[in-house]
Amino acid sequence: MTLKTLGAQAAAALDRELMGSGAFSIDQLMELAGLSVSQAVYRVHPPRLGLNILVACGPGNNGGDGLVAARHLFHYGYKPSIYYPKRSNNELYQRLAKQLEDLDVPFVDDFPAALKSTHHIVDAVFGFSFSGEVREPFPAVIRALEETKLPVTSVDAPSSWNIDEGPPKSGLGSNFQPAVLVSLTAPKPLARFFKGRHFVGGRFVSPKIARQYDLDLPQYEGIDQVVEVDHNGQKL
Amino acid sequence: MTLKTLGAQAAAALDRELMGSGAFSIDQLMELAGLSVSQAVYRVHPPRLGLNILVACGPGNNGGDGLVAARHLFHYGYKPSIYYPKRSNNELYQRLAKQLEDLDVPFVDDFPAALKSTHHIVDAVFGFSFSGEVREPFPAVIRALEETKLPVTSVDAPSSWNIDEGPPKSGLGSNFQPAVLVSLTAPKPLARFFKGRHFVGGRFVSPKIARQYDLDLPQYEGIDQVVEVDHNGQKL
Repeated sequence: MTLKTLGAQAAAALDRELMGSGAFSIDQLMELAGLSVSQAVYRVHPPRLGLNILVACGPGNNGGDGLVAARHLFHYGYKPSIYYPKRSNNELYQRLAKQLEDLDVPFVDDFPAALKSTHHIVDAVFGFSFSGEVREPFPAVIRALEETKLPVTSVDAPSSWNIDEGPPKSGLGSNFQPAVLVSLTAPKPLARFFKGRHFVGGRFVSPKIARQYDLDLPQYEGIDQVVEVDHNGQKL
Repeated sequence: MTLKTLGAQAAAALDRELMGSGAFSIDQLMELAGLSVSQAVYRVHPPRLGLNILVACGPGNNGGDGLVAARHLFHYGYKPSIYYPKRSNNELYQRLAKQLEDLDVPFVDDFPAALKSTHHIVDAVFGFSFSGEVREPFPAVIRALEETKLPVTSVDAPSSWNIDEGPPKSGLGSNFQPAVLVSLTAPKPLARFFKGRHFVGGRFVSPKIARQYDLDLPQYEGIDQVVEVDHNGQKL
């Protein structure tokens, strides 16, 4: 029994297929992805452990998942704050940010400074489409994530890790090992290098798509949008 | 202490505001509304009570909420089937229907016949924008909902009821009293005439909007997307 994973190219193909023949909109998928992340955070870091959650959002879809998760966390009673230094012109991300502004959720400029007053961190910087190098201003964020003693929940990938090959062999990100990983749709190959608590989320994959991509659909409980799995991908 | 409600006109204004200055897309709101409905169904009719759920969908947004709820119910392990006789050309509803077809969820043509093999019914025929008369082919559906002994969960409104004034005084719908009502965003005035189990859902209303429309934000538990309330709108 080994962990079934979805490589970077297959993950991109599955995403295109969900939004193509699968007829999902990105709004829908991002809402459900962010909801999954928020439920995993609630599980590993319930409100009694501290309400302040710092959500680091990258410029792409991973950052969008983080924005959605932050909104749900607000409604659960947390006090999220958002680090979102590279806002794109993408209309969807702008709307997700506006939804947070309407809740008076603060957007912070200095990530290392913001770390000092938070209880938990959500790493929504880079996701399954990441490759190559970490561009400014994110190297300082990755360094802070490597050095912090606070628990970090990474969305789909510990940011800076290669999706198929795992953590960098040396340098930036090579010592980053978050406490929690939420794999959306299916674990990526990098999950084999991950040592913390692992959740799978994204309860919208059809049995057909799972067969087509040779995925194990996780055994969700009840109405949960995430399930915690062991290192073989089996439900804990 | 009396139930605070949102009249038909105010509900329409709030909806426009969420999608205007609130920057929500209808995809997002419908996903969260349908998710709320699915969670209420799970609460009142857990899988051990029978897996077959018949979802009656009207031609508008209420029907769209039903389509989303049916998809989540499928993923919870139920066997939904859909009665959706008046499909519109609306691109969103077409996509929501396609998502169900990809799960091999059956669409049925004969509502009274389909009732014979179901365990629970979701009434997503008409919502807060309903007024006037019940058009074909829905009178037979309302009659069947009045007569059935099966539990019915109505989405936002028992279909055929006047949003502000409640059940028709006589004729079609006057004897329709569903077992469960899921009020989305806030209870409508018709909820004062409702005698069953009442849930409020739609956990996306900001405190600002709640103040502006003089709504009580319901006291949701944990990560729940619905909360059961008493006849005063207080959490049970």
